[in-house]
Amino acid sequence: MTLRVNRERLGQNLEALSQIGKSPRGGINRALGSEAEREARRWLCGYWETHLHKTAAPDAAANLWVVRPGDACKAKIAFGSHHDTVTEGGKFDGALGVLLATEILETLEETHTPTRHPFALVSFTGEEPNPFHVSTLGSKVLSGRLHRADLEHLENEQTHAPFSETLAALGGDLQKIDEALLDPHDVCAFLECHIEQGRRLLDKNLPLAAVGKITGIYREDITVHGEANHAGTTVMRDRHDALLAACALNLAFERALRAVDRDDVTGTVGQLLVFPNSVNIIPGAVVLTLEIRTCDEAILETLREAVTRAAAAIEAQRGVQIERQVNLNQAPAPMSPVLQDALLQAFSDFGQPPCTLTSMAGHDAANVARRTRAGMLFVRSNGKSHCAGEDASLDDIELAGNAMLQALLRLDQELE
Amino acid sequence: MTLRVNRERLGQNLEALSQIGKSPRGGINRALGSEAEREARRWLCGYWETHLHKTAAPDAAANLWVVRPGDACKAKIAFGSHHDTVTEGGKFDGALGVLLATEILETLEETHTPTRHPFALVSFTGEEPNPFHVSTLGSKVLSGRLHRADLEHLENEQTHAPFSETLAALGGDLQKIDEALLDPHDVCAFLECHIEQGRRLLDKNLPLAAVGKITGIYREDITVHGEANHAGTTVMRDRHDALLAACALNLAFERALRAVDRDDVTGTVGQLLVFPNSVNIIPGAVVLTLEIRTCDEAILETLREAVTRAAAAIEAQRGVQIERQVNLNQAPAPMSPVLQDALLQAFSDFGQPPCTLTSMAGHDAANVARRTRAGMLFVRSNGKSHCAGEDASLDDIELAGNAMLQALLRLDQELE
Repeated sequence: MTLRVNRERLGQNLEALSQIGKSPRGGINRALGSEAEREARRWLCGYWETHLHKTAAPDAAANLWVVRPGDACKAKIAFGSHHDTVTEGGKFDGALGVLLATEILETLEETHTPTRHPFALVSFTGEEPNPFHVSTLGSKVLSGRLHRADLEHLENEQTHAPFSETLAALGGDLQKIDEALLDPHDVCAFLECHIEQGRRLLDKNLPLAAVGKITGIYREDITVHGEANHAGTTVMRDRHDALLAACALNLAFERALRAVDRDDVTGTVGQLLVFPNSVNIIPGAVVLTLEIRTCDEAILETLREAVTRAAAAIEAQRGVQIERQVNLNQAPAPMSPVLQDALLQAFSDFGQPPCTLTSMAGHDAANVARRTRAGMLFVRSNGKSHCAGEDASLDDIELAGNAMLQALLRLDQELE
Repeated sequence: MTLRVNRERLGQNLEALSQIGKSPRGGINRALGSEAEREARRWLCGYWETHLHKTAAPDAAANLWVVRPGDACKAKIAFGSHHDTVTEGGKFDGALGVLLATEILETLEETHTPTRHPFALVSFTGEEPNPFHVSTLGSKVLSGRLHRADLEHLENEQTHAPFSETLAALGGDLQKIDEALLDPHDVCAFLECHIEQGRRLLDKNLPLAAVGKITGIYREDITVHGEANHAGTTVMRDRHDALLAACALNLAFERALRAVDRDDVTGTVGQLLVFPNSVNIIPGAVVLTLEIRTCDEAILETLREAVTRAAAAIEAQRGVQIERQVNLNQAPAPMSPVLQDALLQAFSDFGQPPCTLTSMAGHDAANVARRTRAGMLFVRSNGKSHCAGEDASLDDIELAGNAMLQALLRLDQELE
């Protein structure tokens, strides 16, 4: 008989966790180190203690681990996500992956289903943007992307509390953090379930997808140097308006993105500041960030070249200087074919067509993939993300839980 | 014999006043109510006391007046400008008009030249942007554009000092401020000398111009409502990027201004803020100000219509809403033909061709023109304004002083 997760219990747990950090505006605030984030940890540990009879153990990065034993000599199969949220976030981003993992362990427990590999639930520390300005913090430590030296001088931008103190209060230990590096002989696979956050599954009318790759992210800081001057006395032809130049650059960037016309390629100018930003002064300088997300190195190059050409033309035409500096060039993270196959097979078991998508958002799984096999399962969402209006249906979530459980059991058989 | 101003003395006084409020970065900081602004007042009053043997009398708005008597039964002929500066301003903006007026009175005194009308020097309070957010403050009070009720609740945005206290410290009196309204039977004419601030005289290779009109200024607050969303998971065609819409609007506005192609028509988006202004979030809203300066009502209408058409097209194309609100629609201020004629005649006396320009910046004279005859004399500048690099030559300044003195003596004869 195929094992099934308990839909009602999962729904109740999602509801219960969503009350922690709930704001009067309807969103959820559980930033790393906040009182609400600590309360979410206590709630989770209490639940695992009561319902799984297991005590969670934080690693040095305060990632929470709950292990259900299998053969002692086998490597663990891990699964989970994160329990922190963005400011005024929704109830599914992160929490769904942790509570689905919890539900899977609870289903295995109550049916006394043994597994060959130990199954390990993990809830990561600080996946979202936070007052320490490091996102996917816990998984970056596991992957070796962040070391003690990188974290020693961090402080909370609001309270100026040292990161080491916050980490200690969560059960971590900065002194030992380099020892948290994930060993592929200890964890042979990691699977994360997450809402899609976009509209691609909605538009395809499909509930589930396996993730093929997690997008690369490229960012430039761009400064447009024009000439500030009096908005009345400077005739139009004598102007070097930095804002008009930045507007032309942003629109040229958009045209290049439209020419590429692919759903797995996005580009955004999300941040832009004008100087001196006064009603009656021609903008003298504009500072902006330009972001490109793609898994395709050739497309990244095409877009960068389009920006270079546009910038040169705008400099010549408007008498401005455009200064560019790359501040991030994060490679795409391919997901393990073994985990993708296990997911697609499970979809088929539940009558669902195969569907593979690129994740256009970053996730803990992208870091974990640097050390061991990693995979992701996307659940259809309403396309709203990082806001209170984020939503997913319990039907889809139940299906995701059952498919993920099947995939894990298959991996348990297949992996040595 | 034609009277001449003293070039060396004028140069020395410009240099001396420019030291007050001088910053290490080379600019001058004499904002309304600052210690440096009060020191400039003390320096001016001391100079007038020592060299003109006259005691300055502040009116209720703390505008400083020095009167040289003529026939007691005649109305005054007034002239001057302002002694405050923008942040990191130059040594000529305002100060030139006050010190030229001082030099003219001193020349009349030392040559014992009588005038029929009393001659009144005035240095206005708070012409420039200041921490109370009211510019041309002193002349707005004289013109009846600002009343006690408008000023009662003002406070310094930095120190939160009430305006009434600052005004009292400068010798003004908020309780009596409505009595400062200028009476055309008391002041029959006002003439202001100012650097041009633009490059028009420079480009024409002319030292002086009479001002025909002071530009009208029209400003809109515009909010572009788009949809904030995840910069990775939202495919390009599903976006409603408020910043891209604002960029398109700004460039359409610039195209409309270029189509008008006149030196006395300018338009600027000087202030723009993006929300939430985050690297990885599609801009959900943009707030900007759009300014148009022209004396021509038909051109203003043409430009407004161009913005309306562009906004409608952008709304339709990008699925955004563009909300516009007029926050200023200040009519152009024509200068008195009598004063313009007196200036042009004086130019001719000194072998200079006639030249009349529209002032593209606002000035105290625009307010005074609402109550009595007003005129302005522009001196060629280097085109830099509201910055330390602002400059004008002493040759041009001497010529302006001599022409202004002749124009005033002519008005003294002609006006009854």
